[in-house]
Amino acid sequence: MSKRILYDLAGAEDDRRFSPYCWRTRMALAHKGLSVEAAPWRFTEKDMIAFSGQAKVPVLVDGERAVFDSWAIAVYLEETYPDAPSLFGGPAGMAATRFINAWADRVLVREIAPLIVADIHACLHEKDQPYFRATREKAFGASLESVSADRDARVIDFRRTLEPLRTTLKQQPFLGGETPNYADYIPFGAFQWARCSSGFALLAPDDPIAAWNETLLNAFDGLARDARC
Amino acid sequence: MSKRILYDLAGAEDDRRFSPYCWRTRMALAHKGLSVEAAPWRFTEKDMIAFSGQAKVPVLVDGERAVFDSWAIAVYLEETYPDAPSLFGGPAGMAATRFINAWADRVLVREIAPLIVADIHACLHEKDQPYFRATREKAFGASLESVSADRDARVIDFRRTLEPLRTTLKQQPFLGGETPNYADYIPFGAFQWARCSSGFALLAPDDPIAAWNETLLNAFDGLARDARC
Repeated sequence: MSKRILYDLAGAEDDRRFSPYCWRTRMALAHKGLSVEAAPWRFTEKDMIAFSGQAKVPVLVDGERAVFDSWAIAVYLEETYPDAPSLFGGPAGMAATRFINAWADRVLVREIAPLIVADIHACLHEKDQPYFRATREKAFGASLESVSADRDARVIDFRRTLEPLRTTLKQQPFLGGETPNYADYIPFGAFQWARCSSGFALLAPDDPIAAWNETLLNAFDGLARDARC
Repeated sequence: MSKRILYDLAGAEDDRRFSPYCWRTRMALAHKGLSVEAAPWRFTEKDMIAFSGQAKVPVLVDGERAVFDSWAIAVYLEETYPDAPSLFGGPAGMAATRFINAWADRVLVREIAPLIVADIHACLHEKDQPYFRATREKAFGASLESVSADRDARVIDFRRTLEPLRTTLKQQPFLGGETPNYADYIPFGAFQWARCSSGFALLAPDDPIAAWNETLLNAFDGLARDARC
């Protein structure tokens, strides 16, 4: 069997893994029952993944194939391993899940970022810190510390933006239905991003989303729960 | 064949139909190839649908069965007419579509409402107007006219909240994938609501959402395009 490698964003410690996109992929691989070597990668190690033709993780190398972009990887896994448990439950499931992916990218990740960006900086490898600070401060137009400063007030608005997720999880156990699938791993990756890079409580303890998140932390023998945080 | 009746919110004219939830159902029925008599109903005609056990439309009467709530009706149609074209493409498609339903209810409809609420009042049957004004002004805590007054500025923010829909439609023709399904009819119903009750332009003409909307207006021999607006 040829080796399977996932280039996975790491922080100061090799085993601190917190990319929301890489967590989507790690959960997807586990769902398919596929083993993987999750290799630590830092923002400034562009050379290490240059073979993929771009400069971001996740990058999955599966034998002879290299695939990048979390969505493309999920589709690749579904098509390449059709006999393993389905990530999408068919073409219509995949199509509707793409909306969830867009919501997670455009709303969830963007709303979480200012709440935890200073904490992320603090947990990075020192060789990544200047790059991260420069690019993120340019994007926010402010210092990382000032962006995160009002988060205790801001988190109230953030929790309101979760209403579509909360409403759905009051009606069914998972976005995938009775059992989780890739539709769940997408938003779960964002909460795991915050968990592994920041101690900040995104969710109130009695939020139905918190209970769903706990269940997914326990999935696959605690793959996500056992991560360094 | 027993008669199929949909109680459908109407305005001043019997054929002015603008409920976002009823439009979901009308498109779902058309998708299934099911004929229906869409009976005009006004907000103040609670007695007419009291048999359903609640006071809101859509209410579908299908032979001996009465079903209310747009989501419950869609599920009912899928289960009752399994040989007609699928609304969800399987259980996982249905589960993921429920998130789209929640997003439409909690974000899309709520963000559109203040932009068109004064126009909706103007197109109602006069017997509904006092009820509508009283309940909506209480909900908004302001007069209908003041709620809609700043809409030319507010619509810019509104268009930003459509980013998950826009992103998805840049990647695939429909939320249902290559062809539309119930995942599309849900947000489409909200745009049709605005179209049939208000002349206000929710979308910029070059928005990919506008092109998708045009396609759905033409679906089922122009069912939605031919509606009074």
